[in-house]
Amino acid sequence: MTTPDTFHGWVSHSPTTPLTLTTFTPKPFTETDIEIRITHCGICGTDVHTLRSGWGPTDYPCVVGHEIIGIVTRVGREASFPPNSPSALQIGDRVGIGAQCHSCFEPTCDACTSNQESYCPQIVSTYNSRWYLRETKRRGGEKTYGGFARTWRGPADFVFKIPDALPSAQAAPLLCAGVTMFTPLRKYGAGKGRAVGIVGIGGLGHLGVMFAKALGCESVVGISRTGGKEAEVRALGADGFIATAETGWERKWSRSLDLIICTVDGDDMPLEGYLKLLKMDGTFVQVGAPEKPLPRLMAWALIQKGVKVTGSNIGSREDISEMLRVAAEKQVLPWVESRPMEEVNATLKDMEAGKARFRYVLENAEKESRL
Amino acid sequence: MTTPDTFHGWVSHSPTTPLTLTTFTPKPFTETDIEIRITHCGICGTDVHTLRSGWGPTDYPCVVGHEIIGIVTRVGREASFPPNSPSALQIGDRVGIGAQCHSCFEPTCDACTSNQESYCPQIVSTYNSRWYLRETKRRGGEKTYGGFARTWRGPADFVFKIPDALPSAQAAPLLCAGVTMFTPLRKYGAGKGRAVGIVGIGGLGHLGVMFAKALGCESVVGISRTGGKEAEVRALGADGFIATAETGWERKWSRSLDLIICTVDGDDMPLEGYLKLLKMDGTFVQVGAPEKPLPRLMAWALIQKGVKVTGSNIGSREDISEMLRVAAEKQVLPWVESRPMEEVNATLKDMEAGKARFRYVLENAEKESRL
Repeated sequence: MTTPDTFHGWVSHSPTTPLTLTTFTPKPFTETDIEIRITHCGICGTDVHTLRSGWGPTDYPCVVGHEIIGIVTRVGREASFPPNSPSALQIGDRVGIGAQCHSCFEPTCDACTSNQESYCPQIVSTYNSRWYLRETKRRGGEKTYGGFARTWRGPADFVFKIPDALPSAQAAPLLCAGVTMFTPLRKYGAGKGRAVGIVGIGGLGHLGVMFAKALGCESVVGISRTGGKEAEVRALGADGFIATAETGWERKWSRSLDLIICTVDGDDMPLEGYLKLLKMDGTFVQVGAPEKPLPRLMAWALIQKGVKVTGSNIGSREDISEMLRVAAEKQVLPWVESRPMEEVNATLKDMEAGKARFRYVLENAEKESRL
Repeated sequence: MTTPDTFHGWVSHSPTTPLTLTTFTPKPFTETDIEIRITHCGICGTDVHTLRSGWGPTDYPCVVGHEIIGIVTRVGREASFPPNSPSALQIGDRVGIGAQCHSCFEPTCDACTSNQESYCPQIVSTYNSRWYLRETKRRGGEKTYGGFARTWRGPADFVFKIPDALPSAQAAPLLCAGVTMFTPLRKYGAGKGRAVGIVGIGGLGHLGVMFAKALGCESVVGISRTGGKEAEVRALGADGFIATAETGWERKWSRSLDLIICTVDGDDMPLEGYLKLLKMDGTFVQVGAPEKPLPRLMAWALIQKGVKVTGSNIGSREDISEMLRVAAEKQVLPWVESRPMEEVNATLKDMEAGKARFRYVLENAEKESRL
């Protein structure tokens, strides 16, 4: 078997031009790597931010996509796998890769040594990043390339076996959107007796509602700007709905929630209003990363109830494994719309226009993904 | 013994005029009340904010001061006392009253039923507030009056016996400044092996340094704008010092602290820089309440390390009792400068000019305080 050292994918060359199907050069294969024939890749808000250099200059050429599902085609002899993984992944296994594809794993790293790899200061993102170099103890190797492609190659450490109960198109968004919501829900105690609010009902938020219910929360409230998504939010399992365009919502829902996960990435969100919804000692977790700063806040909003404002970045390998287990067991299945990968440019436009209900997943036709 | 229903105190009549020594009318005495001959009262930043209507219109006439030490002169027959109090306070006991003098104590109150009275939505402040009314379940009774006076009257529930090991002038600032620092230190795990930063070295901050050391923190770092207070900060027991006017401090001290308590009440503080000093999962606690909003923050500052930004409001009755115990045992003695209470107007000017090193305490001459 020979593996070409050029892969095919949908490559971005600038913030303003469409993606083109062309070749790119992955990292050289090493014996700790694994290789995947990509079958599906979800479209995440991060893809859109990165393509337009929204969080800072992107390192073009770039292949985005970090909700990757595929079939293992090659396994290095020294590949090591995530915790809770079957002892080894085999050729033919169906696997997934999320937004993080490596970390430093140094014995001096607080994050890596406490199984919180997504907080590693040298986190390697699945695209628009550089592989970690043990010699310099920094990122700086070859570029990383994501899932809008036919093939993915990288270390096996962040490659997860997909449970049989999860169809591929629905498994894809779990790898980033799913774990981004699941991790803070679990960390901040979502479960029996708890009331949780989810701000923003989109690719992330709809999974927040579903996971909060799957974890047994007593009350899950969807929080949206207008009333337009109320029926969908209730169909997802929410017990309550707040439209922040309507007057009086802060007062009506005052001190009713233990935890809020905020997926909105606008800089004009009513942050102080959201905090009014929290009970004493409640927690507000920002997971959407706006391109502009968060709204200003009066310190008194924090002091008077001891509420916490924090953020959460995707999830650790343990979080991903546990999330996949819960999703399979409780059938937390993202609402997806599948599109052929050739339609990536049109689909990105629809994504930016807010048309997703709630996640687009690009699919490679089987004959193409075998090329 | 007769108690006049007019008290003497230093009364504020408007945001711009000096305090005048005159009479005011306290709440009527009831059998759950206690009465105190005031001997000492510290000057807190809240007094200054309130006198100038900085946090909103003050309800003049107003008597500020909520770091009160005095001698019990009258005890109602049904007075109840704080947890850990000697079974009953006696006439002649030396006691203190802090920034909170009552709360709702309703069985439906999350805060009161979990011994976190300082988060009671109907918290009654020691001045510029109204007593709680059980009939309406809201504040709305007579006005509360503070410690820039000769006498204090109110429910015994928030009156604390002062340990003999604490001199009165030094005990006064513990009642507000002391517990404001002690409570978040204890809540967020300051102790063995922990590194703590204290932002702003003033009335609050100097006690933060001392309590963090008293609680056994491995490293305590004072954080100030300039290097001017370094010698004092080290004399207080700090292990390190950061001057934020010097370049490169964020990088030099990056990811070095578990916990930061921020006493600064300016709206131009380098908040993102402070967050850089936190380790993964670290906590930033705001205790100073600026009159303007906090600086804006990029969400990524929260997301990339999972750090928490929160606030803390004074402390519960249990916190105050425990703080007094620790202060007495470890001899945490505020640095105070005593002034006769007649010099209150000049002392307030010095306080606003930032001259306090680190707390002014007003003293009633004994003959006056017996009037």
